[in-house]
Amino acid sequence: MTAPAASLLDRYLASDPRALARALTLAEAGLPAARPLLRAARTRAHRATVLGVTGSPGSGKSTLTGALIATLRAEGKRVAVLAVDPSSPYSGGAILGDRIRMLRHHADPGVFVRSLATRGALGGLSARTMQVLALLEGAGFDWVILETVGVGQSEVDVAAVCDHTLLVLTPAGGDGVQAFKAGIMEIADVIAVNKADLPGADRTVRELMAAQGLGAHDEHTWFAPIRRTIASQDQGMEKLVEAVLKHREHLGEPGLNARRAARAEYEVRSLVQERLMERARVQSRDLYARVARGELDADDVADALVQGDGLPGRGRGAQG
Amino acid sequence: MTAPAASLLDRYLASDPRALARALTLAEAGLPAARPLLRAARTRAHRATVLGVTGSPGSGKSTLTGALIATLRAEGKRVAVLAVDPSSPYSGGAILGDRIRMLRHHADPGVFVRSLATRGALGGLSARTMQVLALLEGAGFDWVILETVGVGQSEVDVAAVCDHTLLVLTPAGGDGVQAFKAGIMEIADVIAVNKADLPGADRTVRELMAAQGLGAHDEHTWFAPIRRTIASQDQGMEKLVEAVLKHREHLGEPGLNARRAARAEYEVRSLVQERLMERARVQSRDLYARVARGELDADDVADALVQGDGLPGRGRGAQG
Repeated sequence: MTAPAASLLDRYLASDPRALARALTLAEAGLPAARPLLRAARTRAHRATVLGVTGSPGSGKSTLTGALIATLRAEGKRVAVLAVDPSSPYSGGAILGDRIRMLRHHADPGVFVRSLATRGALGGLSARTMQVLALLEGAGFDWVILETVGVGQSEVDVAAVCDHTLLVLTPAGGDGVQAFKAGIMEIADVIAVNKADLPGADRTVRELMAAQGLGAHDEHTWFAPIRRTIASQDQGMEKLVEAVLKHREHLGEPGLNARRAARAEYEVRSLVQERLMERARVQSRDLYARVARGELDADDVADALVQGDGLPGRGRGAQG
Repeated sequence: MTAPAASLLDRYLASDPRALARALTLAEAGLPAARPLLRAARTRAHRATVLGVTGSPGSGKSTLTGALIATLRAEGKRVAVLAVDPSSPYSGGAILGDRIRMLRHHADPGVFVRSLATRGALGGLSARTMQVLALLEGAGFDWVILETVGVGQSEVDVAAVCDHTLLVLTPAGGDGVQAFKAGIMEIADVIAVNKADLPGADRTVRELMAAQGLGAHDEHTWFAPIRRTIASQDQGMEKLVEAVLKHREHLGEPGLNARRAARAEYEVRSLVQERLMERARVQSRDLYARVARGELDADDVADALVQGDGLPGRGRGAQG
C-alpha cells in the first residue's frame, strides 16, 4: 500500500486533478489511505482562501457562486467548489439544479467542482465533508468555495468551518431581511444584496447597515461590508472579492489559524459523534426507548457511551 | 438530601407549579437532584401532547402560539410553553419581545411559561433543554408547546424532539414558500398559513398542496394538513388543534413512543457531546490547532477522546 499512496501523495501535491479526485474519494469513503494526504494538505504552506456562501434558496446563491468563479478565473485564480447538501434526508433534487448552473465552468481546468450529499451524525456537515474540504484547501487552489444547499443548520455550520462567510440576500420582501436580522446576519463576514436591480435594494442596504449599528461593537468590530450584486449579469463581483480579501487582511495570520482550528474542531467532533453512534447501536437496539420510558437515566447512558462501559443497571442513581 | 427531594417529587407529581419551577431549575443547573424527577416524569402514564412550533421570524409564530394557548384554555386544557433561543451566542433580545406577546396569559394558573436562552454543544438544543422539556411533558399538562427563537438549525431540531411539528408560513412572498420547499416543508406535520387575510393566501395553499404531491408517497404517507389562520384575531385555531390531534391519532402509541425515543436520543447525544468537550478541554488547550496544522490526525484525536486515553503521539498512523 505504501508505494502507491506515496505516489498519489506526490501527484496530489503537484495539483494533479485526477490524484485530487482519487484523494477525495478516499476521504469520502473514510479510508485510512486518506490520512497521509490530509496531513500533507494541512502542513502545506499554501492554503486556499476558504469562502462559505450562505443564504436562503431563491437568493441566487448558486448563480452568484458561478459569477464569482468567472471573476476569480479572469484574475487567473484557480478555484475549487464544494457543494454540500446536508439536508439530504429531507429533500432531494435541488443539488442537481444548482450544479447545472455551474456547468459554464465545466470545461475549465482551473475550476474543480465536487458535490456531496451527506449529513453529519447530529445534522450539519459530516466529518468526511470536512476532510474533503481540508484536501481541497491544501490542493493548491487559490480559492475554495463551500456552498450548501437547503435550509436549516447549514447556514450556521458554514460559518463555523470557513475563513469567510458570504451571506447572500435579496431586496425582495423586507420581512425576509427582518428574519435574517434574528441570527444569521451576525455570522456574515461579507453581505451581498443580490438582484440589486429589483426595487427595494437601497432600502435593504440601509436596513442592513442600521441593523449592524445595533449590535455591541468597539473599534475592533468587523462590520460586514454590504455590496450590491446582480449575479445573473456578473455585476458587482470584483467588489465582492475585494471585500472578502479585506476581511482576510482583518483576520490576519492569527485569525486565520483560529478559523482553521475551528474547522479541525468541527471535524473531530463529527468523528467522535460517528464513533459514539456506532457504540450506541452496538450496545442496544432500544437504548433510547428505554431512556424515554424512564428505565435508564440519560446521564447514565451518556456516561456509559463516553466510558465505553456496558450499559448501566436499572435504577442506578436512584438515591441521587 | 433524600427527604426534601422526595417531597419535591411528590409536589412535582401533584402538579404544584412552584415544585415544577424548582425542578426545572435543578435540571437547568444539571444537578443530580433532577434525576429522580426526570425518571418520574418519564414513567408517568399521562404524557402531554408535545407540539413544536416552527417558522421564520415574521411569520407570526409567537402570536399564533398565544392564540393557540387561548383556544386550548377555552377547552379547559392546561398548557406549558417552553421558549428556547438556541441562537443566543449570536443574537439577543428577540426572546423578550416574544415573551411580551405571551403576557395575555401570565395571570392564568393553567398556563406555565418558561424561557431558556441556551445552546447545545454542537448548536441546536442543549441536553438541559431536553430535560426541562421532559419535566414539562410529565408534569400533568395536556399540552407542551416548544417554540424556538431565531433561524438556523432550530427548525430541524424542533422536528427531531417533538410529537408534532407545526410549521407557520405566511402568504407574503411566494419565494418564501419556494424557499421552504427545499427542506423545511417535509419536517412539518401540520402547516398553518397565517395572516390568511393577506393577498396570496389561496395561492400559497395551492402551492403547498402541489409541493406535497411531488414527494414520494404511498397510502401510509401523512400529508400535513394545511390550515388558514389569522392568529392576531384568534381565527382558525380550533381547526389547527384538530389537525394536530388527527396527526396524533395517525402516529398512534407506537409512533408516539418512537418520537419519545427520538427525544431521549437527542438528549443522550447532547450529554455525550458536553462530556467530550470537557474531556477535550482538559486534554489540551490547542488540540484543534494542532490538528489544523497537521501535527495530529483528526481520527486519532477522535479515537483518543472516545477512548478517554491520552493524546496520540505525533505521526501515529503515518504508515496507514
